[in-house]
Amino acid sequence: MEDQVDLVGKVFVDHYYHLFDNDRASLCSLYQPTSMLTFEGHKVLGVDNISAKLNQLPFDQCRHSITTIDSQPSSSSAGGIVVFVSGNLQLPGEEHLLRFSQMFHLIPTAQGSFFVQNDIFRLNYG
Amino acid sequence: MEDQVDLVGKVFVDHYYHLFDNDRASLCSLYQPTSMLTFEGHKVLGVDNISAKLNQLPFDQCRHSITTIDSQPSSSSAGGIVVFVSGNLQLPGEEHLLRFSQMFHLIPTAQGSFFVQNDIFRLNYG
Repeated sequence: MEDQVDLVGKVFVDHYYHLFDNDRASLCSLYQPTSMLTFEGHKVLGVDNISAKLNQLPFDQCRHSITTIDSQPSSSSAGGIVVFVSGNLQLPGEEHLLRFSQMFHLIPTAQGSFFVQNDIFRLNYG
Repeated sequence: MEDQVDLVGKVFVDHYYHLFDNDRASLCSLYQPTSMLTFEGHKVLGVDNISAKLNQLPFDQCRHSITTIDSQPSSSSAGGIVVFVSGNLQLPGEEHLLRFSQMFHLIPTAQGSFFVQNDIFRLNYG
């Protein structure tokens, strides 16, 4: 079961950042009306607002590279998973990579997939 | 309600790191038998194992300073809260601060408090 949770976390993370870097508008498929995003301290509620926020970030192209993925079952909700990610973000024209951390709380859907209920993103300034 | 969640997150974080830095053995009061900790990729299950892990870390004294706290209601579980923390860790004899990120999933107790169901800690090497 624990391997299953790790696998779901890894598959989700690969999918999420692939969409982010290649087809950001499609990220909306991973959120629902109840979803919450806190991006660098700014709170956004619901799939429509989250999608608008992600698509209006002040960079068009970016490339995430993932350093660590830690997943745990969120036993309080049947089948939920918390996923904690660290990695680097490369922006166009920027020589230096930006380190970031992000957490997701994934909830199973009736269709056998998962959606993002909680999403918190922070750059790691150092 | 959102302010309440932020307040709970802040109070919890202050309490957690105060205990960690001053009375680490008492951190066990914040976990339960179902709790999960992933510390630098090492998975530990249950209050007893988590307490042992935290008390056997290879440093006796430390000092956490918190940079950011982001909290959201975890609507999948009534009253649950996810808390995302970034900050610095000062170890004895170490000149440089270690940057870290940590997430907690807090679940309400019957006594009107919260316990840590999920805890994931990562140093941010960079």
